[in-house]
Amino acid sequence: MTLQQLIGIDLPLIQAPMAGAQGSALAIAVSNAGALGSLPCAMLSADAMRMELETITAQTDKPYNVNFFCHTPPTPQPEREAAWREVLTPYYAEFQIDPASIAAGPGRNPFNAAAADVLADFKPAVVSFHFGLPSAELLARVRSWGAKIISSATTVAEARWLEAHGVDAIIAQGLEAGGHRGLFLSHDLTTQVGTFALLPQIVRAVKVPVIAAGGIADAQGVQAALALGAAGVQIGTAYLLCPEATTSAVHRAALQSDAAHHTALTNLFSGRPARGIVNRVMRELGAINPAAPAFPLATTAIAPLRAKAEAQGSVDFSPLWAGQNASGCQAVPAAELTRALATW
Amino acid sequence: MTLQQLIGIDLPLIQAPMAGAQGSALAIAVSNAGALGSLPCAMLSADAMRMELETITAQTDKPYNVNFFCHTPPTPQPEREAAWREVLTPYYAEFQIDPASIAAGPGRNPFNAAAADVLADFKPAVVSFHFGLPSAELLARVRSWGAKIISSATTVAEARWLEAHGVDAIIAQGLEAGGHRGLFLSHDLTTQVGTFALLPQIVRAVKVPVIAAGGIADAQGVQAALALGAAGVQIGTAYLLCPEATTSAVHRAALQSDAAHHTALTNLFSGRPARGIVNRVMRELGAINPAAPAFPLATTAIAPLRAKAEAQGSVDFSPLWAGQNASGCQAVPAAELTRALATW
Repeated sequence: MTLQQLIGIDLPLIQAPMAGAQGSALAIAVSNAGALGSLPCAMLSADAMRMELETITAQTDKPYNVNFFCHTPPTPQPEREAAWREVLTPYYAEFQIDPASIAAGPGRNPFNAAAADVLADFKPAVVSFHFGLPSAELLARVRSWGAKIISSATTVAEARWLEAHGVDAIIAQGLEAGGHRGLFLSHDLTTQVGTFALLPQIVRAVKVPVIAAGGIADAQGVQAALALGAAGVQIGTAYLLCPEATTSAVHRAALQSDAAHHTALTNLFSGRPARGIVNRVMRELGAINPAAPAFPLATTAIAPLRAKAEAQGSVDFSPLWAGQNASGCQAVPAAELTRALATW
Repeated sequence: MTLQQLIGIDLPLIQAPMAGAQGSALAIAVSNAGALGSLPCAMLSADAMRMELETITAQTDKPYNVNFFCHTPPTPQPEREAAWREVLTPYYAEFQIDPASIAAGPGRNPFNAAAADVLADFKPAVVSFHFGLPSAELLARVRSWGAKIISSATTVAEARWLEAHGVDAIIAQGLEAGGHRGLFLSHDLTTQVGTFALLPQIVRAVKVPVIAAGGIADAQGVQAALALGAAGVQIGTAYLLCPEATTSAVHRAALQSDAAHHTALTNLFSGRPARGIVNRVMRELGAINPAAPAFPLATTAIAPLRAKAEAQGSVDFSPLWAGQNASGCQAVPAAELTRALATW
C-alpha cells in the first residue's frame, strides 16, 4: 500500500509539525493542497487544541495529522535548576531581569488522557508522535478511532521498536532535520545518522512505509528520497517562510541570512537536543551544555531572555529551529510550495 | 562536461582512497572495471608510493587517482604528549607495554616535494587532496602534468574556497562518510552537514562537477545522489570487504557485525576527527577527547595498544573506519561491486 492510500492523500508529502512556528493555518493550507498538513500540539492546552481542531475541520475535509511529544515528564531538580540559573546570571543582569520573577512557563506536555479526550471528538486521520510512543492504553484509544499512527525513528533499532509496537508508518528522521531529535532508545548523540545512510537501512529493516525527513528542501530532494526507498517525505524547514506559518520575524530573517548555513543540535532551549541556527547563547554556553535542566524544564529559565532580546530585534536567545538545508525556504503560500515540492 | 568526460572513465564512480585498508590492488580492480580507482598515499614513503604506482601502471592503462593529505604538520608538544600517555597508562599496564619503549610511528605525511617528484614520473590522471589543498607551487607542479585536481568540501564555504583555488571537481563529503573528515576552514564539528543537505547546496554554489560522498552504499544511493545534482559519487565503505582491500580480519568482522550500526567521529587514533565503528577505547575515553595530541601525532601513543589487542583478535584499540551505512559491504571482487553500483 502506498503512503497516499494509507492516509488518503494525493501527494506523498507530510508537512512537519513545528511547535511554536505554526498552527492550524499552515496545516489547513497543506492538507487542502493534497499533502498531509500537521498540527503540533506539544505546546497547546486542551482548550487551545480544541480551538485549533475546530478551525481545521471547518476549513478542510481532507486528512490532517495531529502531533504530540510523548516524553515522561522529569522530576523537578531544584539544585540543578538553581545551578543553571547561576550560569545564566550574567545574561539576566544584562537584560535587567530579576531571576526571582521568572515564572514557570507553559513548557511542553506529553500526550495524555486530556488530549485524547479532545481528539476523540475529532478523530483525526493521522496522529504522529515524537520521542517514541505513549502508553499502550492511550495508543489503543487513538487506534480505536481509526487513526493511522506514525512516529519518528532516528536509528534502525528505533524503527524496529516502533514497528513491533504497531505503528502504521515510520518517519526516518535524519540528522539533518530541524527541531527536536526524536531519539528515544538511546540518548547518545553519536547514534544519530544522516538521512542518506538512515533511510535505506530503515527501509530494509521494516515492512511498514517509511517517510524520509531531514535535509529535504525541494522536488529533487523528494525524488532522491523516493529513489532511496521512501514511501513519502516529511518537510518542515522549507515551510517556515510561508505566510501561513507563525514563524517570528527574527526567525524569518535568520532563515534568509547566511547564518542559516550553520545549525547545531542544542539543548539550551528545552533540555533535549534540537537543531537550530547557531546564535549567541549557543556559541557562548556551548550548543549542548550538560548543565541545562532536563526536558522540558530548560525552557523556563531562558524564556525571559528570549522575550527581552526578541523585543530588541535580537535572535541571541531564541530557538531558531531549522534543518541543515534551508535552501528550500520560500515566502510563498504553502499550497504553492507543496505543489512545487511534488513537481517533477 | 560530465565527470566521465573530465576524467576519462566509463562510470561516474570513484573508489574512495582508504589509507590503511587498501593499496594498488583495489585501485587497479576498480579502474579496470571502468570507474576511478584510488591509491591513498598518506601513509606511504616515497619509495613505497613508487612501487605502488609501478604496480598500478603495469596492470592498468585506465585513469587512476592518487590521494594525499595536505595538513600542516604540527609542532610537537611534549607536555601534551606526556599528559595523553598518562591517560593511556592503565591500558599500557593491561597489555604490559612499557611506555618508554614506544617509538614514533610512521604517522601521516602531507603532500610534499618528494611526493611530487615521484608523481612526476607517472603523471596520474587525477590527484585528490584531503584537508584543503597543498601550496600553490606544489599544486602548479601537479597541474603541469595535466592531472585533474579534486578535493573534499564539508561545507558550502569550503566548496567555494576550493573552486576559487582552481580545483577541477569537488567532493561533497557528507557527515555520514567513513574515515577522516576533510574539514579545513573550520574545526568546529557542528559545521558538518549530512549528504542530503550538503550535496544540493554545494551543487548550487559552484560550477565545477560535484561528487557525492557519505552514506552511499548501493545503486539506489548512486541514483539518489545523481537526483540531487551530483556528477558522480565516491564510495569507500562498500569496498572494505572486497578481496583486493587490505582491511584487517578484525575490521572485516566488525563491518559484518551489528557493531557496524554505531559509528562515531573520533580523534583518538590520529588527532583529527574520523568516523569509525565505536569500540572500547572510544567508549571509555570518549570518541572525541580534547586531550589527544594534534594530527597526526595521536597515532603514535595508541599504536602499540592496537598491535597487542589485534594480536589477540580484539578491535578494542583499532581504528575501524567506516561510514554510517555499511549495508553495501560485500565480500565480492571489486569489479563486481563496481558494476553493481552502476546498475540501474
